[in-house]
Amino acid sequence: MKSSKMIDAPKQLLDTGLEVFLEKGYSATGINELLAKAGVPRGSFYHYFKSKEAFGLNIVDLYADQVTQMLVRNLGNSKLPPLARIKALMDESSEGMAKSEFRKGCLIGNLGHEIEALPESFREKLMQVLSGWESSLEACLVEARDRGDIPESTDCSRVAELFWVGWEGAVFRSKLEQSCRPLELFADYFFVAVGGKPSC
Amino acid sequence: MKSSKMIDAPKQLLDTGLEVFLEKGYSATGINELLAKAGVPRGSFYHYFKSKEAFGLNIVDLYADQVTQMLVRNLGNSKLPPLARIKALMDESSEGMAKSEFRKGCLIGNLGHEIEALPESFREKLMQVLSGWESSLEACLVEARDRGDIPESTDCSRVAELFWVGWEGAVFRSKLEQSCRPLELFADYFFVAVGGKPSC
Repeated sequence: MKSSKMIDAPKQLLDTGLEVFLEKGYSATGINELLAKAGVPRGSFYHYFKSKEAFGLNIVDLYADQVTQMLVRNLGNSKLPPLARIKALMDESSEGMAKSEFRKGCLIGNLGHEIEALPESFREKLMQVLSGWESSLEACLVEARDRGDIPESTDCSRVAELFWVGWEGAVFRSKLEQSCRPLELFADYFFVAVGGKPSC
Repeated sequence: MKSSKMIDAPKQLLDTGLEVFLEKGYSATGINELLAKAGVPRGSFYHYFKSKEAFGLNIVDLYADQVTQMLVRNLGNSKLPPLARIKALMDESSEGMAKSEFRKGCLIGNLGHEIEALPESFREKLMQVLSGWESSLEACLVEARDRGDIPESTDCSRVAELFWVGWEGAVFRSKLEQSCRPLELFADYFFVAVGGKPSC
């Protein structure tokens, strides 16, 4: 039993860390609290991770991978027209937040808000993640533009950036209000600003 | 000297607390760090404030007052048409962020992101503050609608909410990227979504 526990410990710590960081962020989370929640023996943390910083960066990767899977699943769903895929993505995110009773927002938003208290390596990492998400959305918007669902003059790169700027604000507000309303509000205006309808 | 220091200590602590909370949030800030920065003797904190929670709520009030002054100054400036006042408000905020080298974002955004780690009293307080800011913006949008600068069908309450949802996202992103670009991007699309121009 002991050896199988040791093999699972890093994964256990990362999964637990992601759960806790999503609720509380990085600074407010102590290593001992994580070890206790993960059921991993005290003192073993530094056996698996060089530092809290290295651990945190690993968690960002883990989270980014999960979100990327959600992006691929929705934005790459060729059964729906492109704007409807973006709407489906927003709906799935909203449902995820509601399911967690709005305790969990976006890890990138959480960590970005405490960026001044984090090791400098986080800034570059978070920007890279957001930039990757923007590229996925941009490709979907280009498809919408090519089909004539949004104006030909649309700057898809700027619109993709606008989406993540506003969406992070909406996630923050939903978490605060414990309601999907801000997400729905932003979704409505996003399609107005884009000049297209998700039902296209 | 000693007595004058004692008189100023609570104000000194609040001003310092606001500076530090703006950069690092609540959870990552220790009382001892604050006392050292404020030049106030260790051990005197609880002489002035019942708890870190009470102190934090006082700081939210202090910050909300400062922002309200900025809102009144800009949104109440009858020399400009209403949408131009909103643009001036965004410009002043952007300049403030740039001046702090993007170390300081919005206190409400910072605290809202760590809401799960904060005493429950913060949730109601932050929502009250945002609701007050929304009312100020709504009044300005109603003026724009009455003048015909935005469509008569505009739901000014929803648009005011959209503004703060998106603006908080843009502030977060500007802090992360250390650039005004996300603020400008959101500003551009806000006026598109509203259907009016700040030069009206």
